[in-house]
Amino acid sequence: MMPQADLLIEGASELATPISNPDFSPAEFSTTRNGSVAAHGGKIVAVGDGATVRSQVQLVPDATVINAAGQTLTPGLVDCHTHPVFSRTREDEFEMRIKGQSYEEIAKAGGGILSSVRHLRQTTKADLVESALPRMDTFLSLGTTTIEAKSGYGLTLADEVKMLEVIAELNRVHPIDLVPTFLGAHEIPDEFRSNRKGYIDLVTHEMLPAVKQRELAVFCDVFCESHVFSVAEAKQILLAARELGFGLKTHAEQLSRIGGTMMAAELGAISADHLDYTTPEDWNAMLQAKVVPVLLPAAVFFLGKSKYADAKAMLRSGLPLALATDLNPGSAMTESLPMVMTLACLQMGLTPSEAITAATYHAALALGSGNFLGSIEVGKKADLVLWGAENHRHIPYHFGVSLVKTVIKSGKVVRAATQD
Amino acid sequence: MMPQADLLIEGASELATPISNPDFSPAEFSTTRNGSVAAHGGKIVAVGDGATVRSQVQLVPDATVINAAGQTLTPGLVDCHTHPVFSRTREDEFEMRIKGQSYEEIAKAGGGILSSVRHLRQTTKADLVESALPRMDTFLSLGTTTIEAKSGYGLTLADEVKMLEVIAELNRVHPIDLVPTFLGAHEIPDEFRSNRKGYIDLVTHEMLPAVKQRELAVFCDVFCESHVFSVAEAKQILLAARELGFGLKTHAEQLSRIGGTMMAAELGAISADHLDYTTPEDWNAMLQAKVVPVLLPAAVFFLGKSKYADAKAMLRSGLPLALATDLNPGSAMTESLPMVMTLACLQMGLTPSEAITAATYHAALALGSGNFLGSIEVGKKADLVLWGAENHRHIPYHFGVSLVKTVIKSGKVVRAATQD
Repeated sequence: MMPQADLLIEGASELATPISNPDFSPAEFSTTRNGSVAAHGGKIVAVGDGATVRSQVQLVPDATVINAAGQTLTPGLVDCHTHPVFSRTREDEFEMRIKGQSYEEIAKAGGGILSSVRHLRQTTKADLVESALPRMDTFLSLGTTTIEAKSGYGLTLADEVKMLEVIAELNRVHPIDLVPTFLGAHEIPDEFRSNRKGYIDLVTHEMLPAVKQRELAVFCDVFCESHVFSVAEAKQILLAARELGFGLKTHAEQLSRIGGTMMAAELGAISADHLDYTTPEDWNAMLQAKVVPVLLPAAVFFLGKSKYADAKAMLRSGLPLALATDLNPGSAMTESLPMVMTLACLQMGLTPSEAITAATYHAALALGSGNFLGSIEVGKKADLVLWGAENHRHIPYHFGVSLVKTVIKSGKVVRAATQD
Repeated sequence: MMPQADLLIEGASELATPISNPDFSPAEFSTTRNGSVAAHGGKIVAVGDGATVRSQVQLVPDATVINAAGQTLTPGLVDCHTHPVFSRTREDEFEMRIKGQSYEEIAKAGGGILSSVRHLRQTTKADLVESALPRMDTFLSLGTTTIEAKSGYGLTLADEVKMLEVIAELNRVHPIDLVPTFLGAHEIPDEFRSNRKGYIDLVTHEMLPAVKQRELAVFCDVFCESHVFSVAEAKQILLAARELGFGLKTHAEQLSRIGGTMMAAELGAISADHLDYTTPEDWNAMLQAKVVPVLLPAAVFFLGKSKYADAKAMLRSGLPLALATDLNPGSAMTESLPMVMTLACLQMGLTPSEAITAATYHAALALGSGNFLGSIEVGKKADLVLWGAENHRHIPYHFGVSLVKTVIKSGKVVRAATQD
């Protein structure tokens, strides 16, 4: 019997999508001229070219039909590493860095993550939701339909729970899906500066069980770096998280190579993120343990550094490479995955199709959602973006602007171009 | 007597503007909390803080009054170097470069500027206008209210005139002001490959007088570079242009140092553009001859190069430094001056206020329009932008997105935020 459809998008000048891959390896990328897709109840029911899709489905009476002539159709973008809940922006530090202070010096002088912590603790949940909502709109306006969202500016039980409750509230009230990650181990808070063990105990024995009990996070992440949490400390926290049933992530090898990636592989983490200082040994361990590499070139760019992760070598070694914005007020103030793709193409040598795959299907893998997100295939969630461009190459090529015309989330138009 | 006002913008969280400078040196930058401005007939009639401005003017009955609480008010951005009229984008070359071919190799293989020339010659004036209009909308959506626009993809008398007529038409039909520049010496066209002198004669003896006679361009520009026009050739063309009364510009020292900047200074050019390979000797010559340096970091970024012009040293040497996008389909596919400011801050070390000055008042100097454009001061054109941000630092800090809320051109609202 013919499937019903409540959404039909017809005649995109190009339908561009990764193809799901049962193996742990880079996905193929498919382009179809005059591409069409149909969906029903928020799921894709048919994909093909020209009028074939219309003939394969039965349109319900009030179906939405979109003529996509001259536009490119891709899956909704998936941003698999963000810190979108914060109380104050840190544009003053941006200027301080330009004038010559390092990120580490600014942190030591009371800026950095701990400055965000001080402000977040003084901000109500309602105010945090209100200040984060425009960021959700900005994500959507740039084609992102799912984000991973981390806590980590609270660093007390109450404030970490508050942040995760903000993320849950954003997920309820905004079309974007937010996948929550607990990052209590983002930094050692001031009050535990002389008692690191005390803080790690607090994270493992109190915060993690409380977050689990409230079902506020899917993943647990740790900032494993020489000036933050050591490999041994990160391992202790992640082991406790694994015991409780969290999926594991880690910030690893961003500023130096201390072994966070190998540890992530050893523990079976779903992703290891940043990876600017990783080596072939790390990549091999990730491949064996099926850890998705998540690269964050916007942070390298924003910190004025020049050592980008060796993305091409990771792809050649067989890893399904993901990209994310790392949106945060200190080291990557952008919601734009298209901009991140441009950076990945120009600074890391990814082709446009590799960059788009990294920001859709591979990013979904980094969230454990490869089975239902990140590509335009029958059975997947109808999260779709129409871009005002003839083909997918424009998305990284035409940079610093938004080419997004229409955004579809779970089969519904949630953003349509009103100007341009 | 109190001046009348048909526009009042009140209570911006910050009014941020350069202050016009009669000397040829970097302008001061002023920030006012709770800033207000009034305009009449397209010109600014009062600037100040809080309610003082309202008390200084007499509002006409149908005046537009805007409450700018929580927003930053700056002058409209001035993009003083763009190539916005072209027939086809060149995203294929973007991918070829990523895969390892150089810009020069692509040009030799039939790509590059000459590929744009082939396509433009086959495109009608009406089609060129239609394809350029969305770019004008994009400029405006990112806060740009005036652009310089070059010919240079025609390279026959008829096709150069066609391009300049497209620019004139865009200027008529779109709120953005376009300042036209004749760039017949952008490249040697295929049919003159074995007769360089013949093409230079065509430019100097036929094109320049014809463009002048039709009043189609204010400036004459030459691409002075080792693989394009030599210093001697560029000088010959620019001398002929000066004789006819054109203002002079030159693409200089982009890929190597061959002396274009010194030549520009010798001839009294209004600007020399790119300048990645200039030295203190060049800067001193520009200072003596009052040549505005126009830096184009988006081209460095987009070509995957790392040698940016030494902007800080130029400022220290006393030059009023300008920034521009260089929008063109081959080496800088962006309409975003905010993105260019981010690049200038992160890659060249400009502070946010230096970057904004470079993209407003100093850019106006590069167009000979410093007396009436580029700052929020009484008597200047009421080209204004309201940004959804508490202070001017956000403009380069929050990158890859558009913070623009409202754009005012000649005292009229031409773009207002409809979403977000």
